[in-house]
Amino acid sequence: MASLMFTVSTSPLLHPSIRNNAFMPRRCIGHIRLHTTPSIRGCTLSIRSSSSPDAGFTCIDGKKEGKSISDEIKIEVSRMDASIHVVPGLAVILVGDSQDSASYVSNKKKACGSAGIKSVDVCLPEHSSEEDVLKHILSFNNDPSIHGILVQLPLPSHLNEANILNVIKKEKDVDGFHPFNMGLLAMRGREPDFVPCTPKGCIELLHRYNVEIEGKRAVVIGRSNIVGMPVAHLLQNEDATVTTIHSKTKNPEEIAREADILIAAAGQPNMVRGSWIKPGAVVIDVGINHIEDLNAPRGRRVVGDVCYEEACKVASAITPVPGGVGPMTIAMLLSNTLTSAKRIHEFE
Amino acid sequence: MASLMFTVSTSPLLHPSIRNNAFMPRRCIGHIRLHTTPSIRGCTLSIRSSSSPDAGFTCIDGKKEGKSISDEIKIEVSRMDASIHVVPGLAVILVGDSQDSASYVSNKKKACGSAGIKSVDVCLPEHSSEEDVLKHILSFNNDPSIHGILVQLPLPSHLNEANILNVIKKEKDVDGFHPFNMGLLAMRGREPDFVPCTPKGCIELLHRYNVEIEGKRAVVIGRSNIVGMPVAHLLQNEDATVTTIHSKTKNPEEIAREADILIAAAGQPNMVRGSWIKPGAVVIDVGINHIEDLNAPRGRRVVGDVCYEEACKVASAITPVPGGVGPMTIAMLLSNTLTSAKRIHEFE
Repeated sequence: MASLMFTVSTSPLLHPSIRNNAFMPRRCIGHIRLHTTPSIRGCTLSIRSSSSPDAGFTCIDGKKEGKSISDEIKIEVSRMDASIHVVPGLAVILVGDSQDSASYVSNKKKACGSAGIKSVDVCLPEHSSEEDVLKHILSFNNDPSIHGILVQLPLPSHLNEANILNVIKKEKDVDGFHPFNMGLLAMRGREPDFVPCTPKGCIELLHRYNVEIEGKRAVVIGRSNIVGMPVAHLLQNEDATVTTIHSKTKNPEEIAREADILIAAAGQPNMVRGSWIKPGAVVIDVGINHIEDLNAPRGRRVVGDVCYEEACKVASAITPVPGGVGPMTIAMLLSNTLTSAKRIHEFE
Repeated sequence: MASLMFTVSTSPLLHPSIRNNAFMPRRCIGHIRLHTTPSIRGCTLSIRSSSSPDAGFTCIDGKKEGKSISDEIKIEVSRMDASIHVVPGLAVILVGDSQDSASYVSNKKKACGSAGIKSVDVCLPEHSSEEDVLKHILSFNNDPSIHGILVQLPLPSHLNEANILNVIKKEKDVDGFHPFNMGLLAMRGREPDFVPCTPKGCIELLHRYNVEIEGKRAVVIGRSNIVGMPVAHLLQNEDATVTTIHSKTKNPEEIAREADILIAAAGQPNMVRGSWIKPGAVVIDVGINHIEDLNAPRGRRVVGDVCYEEACKVASAITPVPGGVGPMTIAMLLSNTLTSAKRIHEFE
């Protein structure tokens, strides 16, 4: 906590809620109560970007938070196994040969292993029919050892995403993409069975860094079903005033600059420049874009939607790419799978 | 059309899309293609508020538009009856003794009668149990002569609204309040079975008055499940940039003033003053608030969320209360009931 006091005195850019270290009741989204320890709350100063020109700037460390959540889940998984001899199980269906998708699936598998969650992968060839995919989903729907089913997106273009996702049993829809679940997420006073993993990870990071949401202006860049739309609802559910900007918005830069909390989920490398950011804003960069870089080992590297070098001179806090939202997405998938297993087996 | 040219020359406040009479392709929401005739498109000048100080100000006449839609529906109902001997049927369930609710139900019944739609009302006493209500819903779910089921809200406080609404068969959920339907409404690239009536009525008015939505700033005041949230999605689906403001928003007046299209659905009489409105904005007032007025015949009168007298000096167009959104809500209910009957009987 003392370290946070230090932050207060040195950084005019740091978000007031971090600067003032105001205690915010730890709200958990979804059904798992993730136990945030004081050491997590007080981590803002120990995580610094070496490229930051401002001593008070905070690089939001999704990798560290994701690891911490995974460790907490591991404890819960062990407790469940010891008590009722059930291990949560996640089935991942991958269709096609996309390297990126294969890499995500591999990361998910590793993360499941670390947390003690059983994972089952099905890799289907690019030309698979809808029936091929549905057959596996139906089988997992009926498999009592599987508590979460995830179809890796995007699917090859000949497959109808909606038809496929709608078949996943809603009790096992750990990605939270079923329309019924999305409706519950959008509606006030209702609780979704699962909060989609990336939006949940964004909000969890804001919580873990004590970023005040209530009454703040939030701007979400992008209106996708898997990030922009649900994250806008989550922010609004926590009483932010939310504007969603998109490809048809005429003055995105001007609107983005109104944001106390800026969520970039447009899928456009380095789209958000420093001039888009209100001084002191907290920026969550959801983008994972591969760009050419001849100096990089494989000739390309990953960047976010936000120009990090410029943003860190203006924002009070920002997630890096990689190491920001990505690891949180996977942590939230584990969290949702554990939630599902607990719910199905009525384990508290 | 000449009359619109006149509007152009006299009113700097009129919305550009009305001023310039730009042809906008007539987009229909939901599954019914409502046939807008040229006379409807050209109606802006013939509808004037006598209290408007500006000759170019447009009072958006929901009563007239609602009547026109009802007439179109009547023709379709007759055609359906003549072709397949099916008349659309709407069941309305009213619980309790609320005068307002009884009055709405009575209006709906009259409107059904005018359009040739069969209506069945069930009025249950205030103290009815959840089982009492569910029994009737289940019966209507299985009744082939009923194509739409509506439970009048709000329900008495001892009843669980979610439990009751979720039981309505989604094919007959003409209010569109089921989470599955709301999810489809919120998701890009998906189509809800039914668009909730009041939001659908708001958008229909914007269409019928040729208000350009794409690329415009829209501000929705209120985030309710039945108006604010779905209307925000409908506006965003038509490429507006939408901000939703609510009770926790710190500077609602300032944000409202950014709106080209302002939808007031807060349930607060006269909350939106002239100073909240950007000059030339189009204002849709969803509020129906009963306030005391000793000069009124029954000691009270109905006002909207917008202070009409002030708004009409600033806005280019506004819906009055009564006679604005209210009649459109009922027209959209008829439209959804017809859609449902057509869909169930595969009648085109």
